[in-house]
Amino acid sequence: MRKLNIAIIGLGNIGSYLFKYLNDNKKILTEKNNCLPVIKYVSAKNKKRKRHIKIKKKQWLKNYLDSTKLDDVDLIIELIGGAEGPAKKLVFNALKNGKHVVTANKALIAKYGDQLSRIAEKNKVNLEFEASVCGGVPIIRSLKEGLIANKIFKIYGIFNGTSNYILSTMDKKNKNFNDVLSDAKRLGYAESNPSADLNGDDVSSKLKILSSLCFNSFLNNKIYVEGIKNIDKTDIDNANQLGYKIKLLAFAELINKEIYQRVHPTLIKKDSYVASIDGVLNAVIIDGQPLGQSIIQGEGAGPAATTSALVSDISSILRGNIKFPFSLSSKKRKKLKFQNIDNRFFSAYLRFEVVDKPGVLSKITNIFSKNKVSIKRLIQNPDKLRKSSSIIIITHDAKDIALNKILKEVSRKNFIRLKPKLIRIDDN
Amino acid sequence: MRKLNIAIIGLGNIGSYLFKYLNDNKKILTEKNNCLPVIKYVSAKNKKRKRHIKIKKKQWLKNYLDSTKLDDVDLIIELIGGAEGPAKKLVFNALKNGKHVVTANKALIAKYGDQLSRIAEKNKVNLEFEASVCGGVPIIRSLKEGLIANKIFKIYGIFNGTSNYILSTMDKKNKNFNDVLSDAKRLGYAESNPSADLNGDDVSSKLKILSSLCFNSFLNNKIYVEGIKNIDKTDIDNANQLGYKIKLLAFAELINKEIYQRVHPTLIKKDSYVASIDGVLNAVIIDGQPLGQSIIQGEGAGPAATTSALVSDISSILRGNIKFPFSLSSKKRKKLKFQNIDNRFFSAYLRFEVVDKPGVLSKITNIFSKNKVSIKRLIQNPDKLRKSSSIIIITHDAKDIALNKILKEVSRKNFIRLKPKLIRIDDN
Repeated sequence: MRKLNIAIIGLGNIGSYLFKYLNDNKKILTEKNNCLPVIKYVSAKNKKRKRHIKIKKKQWLKNYLDSTKLDDVDLIIELIGGAEGPAKKLVFNALKNGKHVVTANKALIAKYGDQLSRIAEKNKVNLEFEASVCGGVPIIRSLKEGLIANKIFKIYGIFNGTSNYILSTMDKKNKNFNDVLSDAKRLGYAESNPSADLNGDDVSSKLKILSSLCFNSFLNNKIYVEGIKNIDKTDIDNANQLGYKIKLLAFAELINKEIYQRVHPTLIKKDSYVASIDGVLNAVIIDGQPLGQSIIQGEGAGPAATTSALVSDISSILRGNIKFPFSLSSKKRKKLKFQNIDNRFFSAYLRFEVVDKPGVLSKITNIFSKNKVSIKRLIQNPDKLRKSSSIIIITHDAKDIALNKILKEVSRKNFIRLKPKLIRIDDN
Repeated sequence: MRKLNIAIIGLGNIGSYLFKYLNDNKKILTEKNNCLPVIKYVSAKNKKRKRHIKIKKKQWLKNYLDSTKLDDVDLIIELIGGAEGPAKKLVFNALKNGKHVVTANKALIAKYGDQLSRIAEKNKVNLEFEASVCGGVPIIRSLKEGLIANKIFKIYGIFNGTSNYILSTMDKKNKNFNDVLSDAKRLGYAESNPSADLNGDDVSSKLKILSSLCFNSFLNNKIYVEGIKNIDKTDIDNANQLGYKIKLLAFAELINKEIYQRVHPTLIKKDSYVASIDGVLNAVIIDGQPLGQSIIQGEGAGPAATTSALVSDISSILRGNIKFPFSLSSKKRKKLKFQNIDNRFFSAYLRFEVVDKPGVLSKITNIFSKNKVSIKRLIQNPDKLRKSSSIIIITHDAKDIALNKILKEVSRKNFIRLKPKLIRIDDN
C-alpha cells in the first residue's frame, strides 16, 4: 500500500480537529484513495495547550521549518494563518523543496497565490486551498472539476458567516449591531477580534481567489470592499418595509473581457434565494454557460467544515495526480483587465437623517437632479419631537460615481444630523 | 501532448450538443487537463437526422460495437439510454475490453452498476456517471471528492425537473395536472412519453445510485416509489391552506446501520428551503458529519446541463487517474441491510371525499383510533349542493403500515366518493 507522510503545522482548533479526524478515519480514507495518510510530524507555537489529542513525542518537530526539509514528509498542511511571517515562510519553502501543500490560509493565497502556484508547477507538487474559501462548501473543487465545462461570467454570494449571522440576527431578533456582536462572540460565531470579518477583508480574499479560478485570470487587488459596520437597525427595518433584506454580498463579474470585483452590503429582494440564507451559512451562486445557474450552500467556517475541506484536498493528493493550483498552468492564465466600479450602474438606497425644516428636501433632491440620478421612491419620516426627519431614497440605475458624489455633497450640508448612508441594491 | 481518443455512441440532442461542445472547447479542456480530447468516432441509430454538427465521414463507425474493439478508442461515451439492449451490450463490452466509459444512463447504472463497477476495477479503467443523476448538479463528484471527509446519514431532495415543474406550475398558475402536463410537453419540459418522470422511476434510479455512494453500500432495489399522478389541484390548495407545498421528494437515510429509500410526494413547510425550489430545478441536500448540511442546486436536465456533467467526467479521465466507480473498491463496499418503510413513522395528510350524511365522520375517526393513529388536525368542507363533504386529516407521527391500513379500510366504505389520498409530511 502506498502511503503519504504528512506534517500538520499549526494545532489550534482546526489543526487539532484535523489531527483527530485523520487518525479516526485512516481506514476509510485509505480505502477510498488507495493510499495511507500518516501524520508523521506536527508543530505548534504553544506545545502545552490542552488539545484532547494524543501526540507522540517523536511527532513533535523541533522547528516547524524542518518539515520542509525532512525526506519523510510528502505533504505539509499549513494552519498557521496570516499572509506574512511564518505561514508565508513555511509554504514558500515547502513548495520550493518539492513538498505538497494544503492550506486554509485565504490571506496568503489571495496575496501570494500566483507566485506560489508557479513554484508548485515548476516542482510538480500540489498546492490545494479548498479550506481557504467558504469552509465546507466544496466550491473550489466544483469550479475546477464538477463545473469544469462551464464558461463562468458571474460568481456571487454570502462568503462570511460572522457578518451574515450579525445581519440576520439584527433582523430577526430586533437587536442592534453591538448587542448582536457581543452575542456572536459569546457563541463563538465571531472571533475576539472580528475586524477582518466585519470590514470585508475576509470576503475580499475569498473573492479574489474565486475570481481567478472562475475567469482563468491572475489574482488582482482591484476590488471594491465595504464591510457591515455602518449598517444599523434602522437600515434593516427600512429595507424590510421596502421588501428587501440586507446581506453582505461578494460579486465577481466578467463583462466585455473586463472583471469587476466588489464586496458590500446589498439590498436584495426578500423572496430571492440569497435573502433566505441566514445565520452562519455560506452560499455561492455561479452563473455560466452551458449550465446556467448553480448554487452550493453549506457551513462556511469552524473546525468541522474546515476539516471537511482540508480532507478533500488531502484525499486528492492521496489519489496522487498533480494538478494546476489555479486550474490552468501559470503560462496559460490570462492577464485580464480589472476595472473599478465607478462606471457600473446600480440602483441604490440612500438614507439621510436631517433637521426637519422647510427646504431641506428640495435641497437634497436638487443634488440628485444635478448629478443626473433619478429617484424611484422617496420616503420621509419626520420626528416632530426631535425636530428631525429621516429621508429614504431609492434611485433608478445610476453610475456608482454619481451616487457617491451625491453622498459626499449631501454630507457636507449643515442640515445633516448623521453620516448619510448608501447601500447598493441588487434586483436580480 | 497526451491525447485521449473518444467515441460518442448516440447522437440525439445530448450527443450532438456534446460533440459540438468538445470541438469548440478543445483548447481550454486541453490546457486545464493536460491532455487533448479527440472525437475519433461516432455512431447513431439514425445517421440522416439533422444535427447541425460537422461529422467527418471517417468518424462514423459501421457498427457501434466496433468502438469497444478498436485500438484507437480510449473512452466510450454511451448516450443510447435504457437499462437493457444496445446500451447494456456497449458498456459491458467496452469495460471488458479495457475502455473507459462515461455514461448518462441512470437506468443502466442503477440496475447493473455493481457488476459494471467490478469489471471496470478489474480492467483498471474508469466508469463515470455524473450525468446520470441530476444533470448539471455536480453531486456525484461532490460526494466522491469535495465531501469525501463526511459520514453521510441522509441525502434527499428534488431529483426530477419534470415533476417539479408540474407541481410548482399547478400551484402558481392555478391549473390542473393534465393542463400543466400538456404545457410541459409543448415547452420541452416533459418528454412525449413522460411516464418514468411522473411515476417516480426516474427518481428511483437516481436515488439508488446516490444511496450507494453516500453509504458505501451496494445498489439495492428495496425502495418505496410513488409518483405524482394522483396529486390534484385540490391537494395543492389544501396544502397551501395548511402552510405546506407538495413536492416529489426522494430520501435515502442510514438509521442504525439500515438504509431506507423512498420516493413520494411530500408535504413540506412553505418556508423550508426545498419548498422554494420551483420549475425544472433540482436540489440535493446532504446531512453528514463533520460538515452538517450541504446543499447543491442547479439545472437537472437538458443537453446543456447533461453536457456539463459529461465534460466533468471526461476531464477527470483526461487528467488520467483511475478511480473506483462507487468511491470504494467493490471488495470494500458494504452489504448493508435495506428496510422497507412499513415501520417508519410519518405524520401524514389524508383526504377523504365522502357522502355528506350523519355518522360518516365518526366512522372514519373510529378507523383511525382502531389503528392507533392520532389526529392532529381535522378539516371538514361540506358541499351541501352536491351532498358531499371533503375531510382533511393531518395525523401525528404514526407507522406507515398503520396509515396505509386506514387508507385501505376507509376506501372500502360505501360513503367514499373518490379514491382517498395519503401524502406523507416532512416537518424537518
